[in-house]
Amino acid sequence: MPRHFVQELDVLKTNIIKMGSSAEEGVREAIHALLERKPDVARGVLEREERLNALEVEIDQQVADLLALQQPVASDLRFILAALKINSDLERIGDHAVNIAESAIQYASGAPLPVHVDIPRMARIAQTMLRTAIDGFIHRDATLARPVLTDDDAIDDLNRKVLVDLVGQIRSHPESVEQSLELIRVSRNLERIADLATNIAEDVIYMAEAQVVKHNFERKS
Amino acid sequence: MPRHFVQELDVLKTNIIKMGSSAEEGVREAIHALLERKPDVARGVLEREERLNALEVEIDQQVADLLALQQPVASDLRFILAALKINSDLERIGDHAVNIAESAIQYASGAPLPVHVDIPRMARIAQTMLRTAIDGFIHRDATLARPVLTDDDAIDDLNRKVLVDLVGQIRSHPESVEQSLELIRVSRNLERIADLATNIAEDVIYMAEAQVVKHNFERKS
Repeated sequence: MPRHFVQELDVLKTNIIKMGSSAEEGVREAIHALLERKPDVARGVLEREERLNALEVEIDQQVADLLALQQPVASDLRFILAALKINSDLERIGDHAVNIAESAIQYASGAPLPVHVDIPRMARIAQTMLRTAIDGFIHRDATLARPVLTDDDAIDDLNRKVLVDLVGQIRSHPESVEQSLELIRVSRNLERIADLATNIAEDVIYMAEAQVVKHNFERKS
Repeated sequence: MPRHFVQELDVLKTNIIKMGSSAEEGVREAIHALLERKPDVARGVLEREERLNALEVEIDQQVADLLALQQPVASDLRFILAALKINSDLERIGDHAVNIAESAIQYASGAPLPVHVDIPRMARIAQTMLRTAIDGFIHRDATLARPVLTDDDAIDDLNRKVLVDLVGQIRSHPESVEQSLELIRVSRNLERIADLATNIAEDVIYMAEAQVVKHNFERKS
């Protein structure tokens, strides 16, 4: 494999790591802004999103160049195609972080709800799923990625529970319906973030297991 | 260009058309099920989703084979990469159709709301956006895809209006909060479908305009 190509693959991996960290940070800050009622922090998430979008375009272009100029096959091709999909999933996670940040701004403009909902726990699980899936990609390791798939069920259960709690809240306090709706929106966005982390984990498993099956597995890091 | 390769590209295009029709049909049936209160039709959407998922995997595999076995460059590479992204977007549209179908089933189990909301109009616009974006892909024509971008603003406005109407409904009739929440969910899913149709249109424009810029535009159909 030409040295230049190895370097290009490394740049691609580094860019996906950057993208992953930035998406993760966006989710973390959006939830922090919501729970601590800090609209300024939420506005920072909206700015971060622009850098994430620019990085997505850069990675897409890099993948197109790699495919056109090199002729990657087997494990390298699977790695590049996985990077392309993960890139798109991470950009979408950034979009969901923005949605949560918007809800955080709205929510901070009204009185906090007295009801206890499981959003902090959902957020912790979703963030762990995302970090683990990205680690699986970095190390091309399906065993890292696999637990992410089962965590997704926990998130779905929590999302349903949050919805039931907030429906009860709306029934008893219809005057604060907007605040309840913002938390429902946050819960659904966390559920989508967990779905996308699951997609990333599935891509990692496919990438890594196809390598094992074809006996050309090469650990790159 | 080898004859075999031309045929492979044609199969890929046909599969994307199939995928697009199926996603479109899913949205149409889910909305029909909601408006006409037909849970049976909604359950058909859930079955369709499995075929859509299988087709997505098939197309992904086809793209991986094309990239590995042929060495596509320039307009063919852009076409293949666009197909890969559109494939993923169409699968997600299928997911949103399923969400709407689930809401249709729930909604049909309770009394219909007396409030008039703009969901039928949102659905019509979103379906037109989807069909137009797919047409743009089939004909590799950016002028077909461009109007989709402006339609997305109309959908966002309608989504906000539907939300305001339903918040009013919840305030005045908190006892029917679940029914209102189902319609809010439908509205958000339509808004996401419109977003994904916009993504498809953007990919078509990029694909077609890069061809024009590089003077190697070849109309395939």
